[in-house]
Amino acid sequence: MNRTLYDLAGADPALRFSPFCWRTRMALAHKDLPVETIPWRFTEKERIAFSGQGLVPVLVDGERVLHDSWAIAEYLEETYPHCPSLFGGPEAQAVTRFVNAWTDAVLHPWVGRLVVRDILDVIRPEDRGYFRESREKRFGVTLEAFVAERETVLPEFRRALQPVRLVLRAQPFLAGEAPAYADYIVFGAFMWARGASAFRLLESDDPVHAWRERMLDLFDGLARRSPGHEV
Amino acid sequence: MNRTLYDLAGADPALRFSPFCWRTRMALAHKDLPVETIPWRFTEKERIAFSGQGLVPVLVDGERVLHDSWAIAEYLEETYPHCPSLFGGPEAQAVTRFVNAWTDAVLHPWVGRLVVRDILDVIRPEDRGYFRESREKRFGVTLEAFVAERETVLPEFRRALQPVRLVLRAQPFLAGEAPAYADYIVFGAFMWARGASAFRLLESDDPVHAWRERMLDLFDGLARRSPGHEV
Repeated sequence: MNRTLYDLAGADPALRFSPFCWRTRMALAHKDLPVETIPWRFTEKERIAFSGQGLVPVLVDGERVLHDSWAIAEYLEETYPHCPSLFGGPEAQAVTRFVNAWTDAVLHPWVGRLVVRDILDVIRPEDRGYFRESREKRFGVTLEAFVAERETVLPEFRRALQPVRLVLRAQPFLAGEAPAYADYIVFGAFMWARGASAFRLLESDDPVHAWRERMLDLFDGLARRSPGHEV
Repeated sequence: MNRTLYDLAGADPALRFSPFCWRTRMALAHKDLPVETIPWRFTEKERIAFSGQGLVPVLVDGERVLHDSWAIAEYLEETYPHCPSLFGGPEAQAVTRFVNAWTDAVLHPWVGRLVVRDILDVIRPEDRGYFRESREKRFGVTLEAFVAERETVLPEFRRALQPVRLVLRAQPFLAGEAPAYADYIVFGAFMWARGASAFRLLESDDPVHAWRERMLDLFDGLARRSPGHEV
């Protein structure tokens, strides 16, 4: 069966930096489902219009068209029950929603505040106008102003990671002894930063740093082999 | 078998306001395990010295002595596998750690900043010196100064609940269709506030408010029947 993922790319088509697309790529790898990824850029709305909306990830799984990373994870879990579970059962799936919600509501705004200006430098010149305009409208300030305080707020960002850190002091992965979708959700945010920015988010003695290294190594280094900054 | 829980109490011995003890009380009710609760006050360290430390909850389950709410939850799950599960399996248990860590690292400091001064008014006069001194040492300011900005920071507190809110927009409980330990962890923080303070934490149209109402109703209104402020 044909399986393709529309995946946000930089000017370099090999550079993939969407946190949501990374959730899906790690989920597909976890389930051992091969996929062809198609580089897609912010302004190519018409190329994914068949999905009924304008955001990636868009997964085409044979006849099925899916979007929204959480909906895709649920779909994969339901459609491929004999592949390794992304959650470990319906109860774990329900609680993983909290990790998803925390990442969307807390972690992503934080990472954006640190790296969003750098994205401008890795995308195609023809996409920069759209990116700057849409984000500056969303944030209410210029991209440059949005990240201006990043050195100052960095300690606060690191404190905001404390829930992740506390878990990783007790177990190697957010999902327990082995990684699962809870890990891919949080890891996606770090892949967003890694693809776009050389700004150093984590101190090297942070348990979150060690976990990120383990995540980069998964699936024969799927994430590590992707272009990005080693920080 | 004899089962007793040392449970933090106010001047009124019926007033129970420890968020950690509430996690354990809800967990015991969930497992349908009867328990006798023993009112305990901050300064009565010697009464729980047999547990090898000075904090509640302390659960005496027949011959076993346990402390630390998370350790107690794990113990109950392992010891009473035929009672309703607190987690729904090891995978869900592992992910529930994140809810526990977020509550400890984010929610509790927030709730403390809103209600901690009010605790002084509900505990015995002879415990107030200890409470004030230990907390002011921890916070580095007087209890009054610690909560002085609470009206101002209230909107920020409500925004900090966004991860909980996002989950509750998708499902009735943090654990999914039915409540489980993930819910009891977060709910404990609200029982802490409810026992100690008339300060209104939630707007009535907040999904978190509706969830708290459902939680208050569980187990024949176990939590609602406990003295506290209906806000």
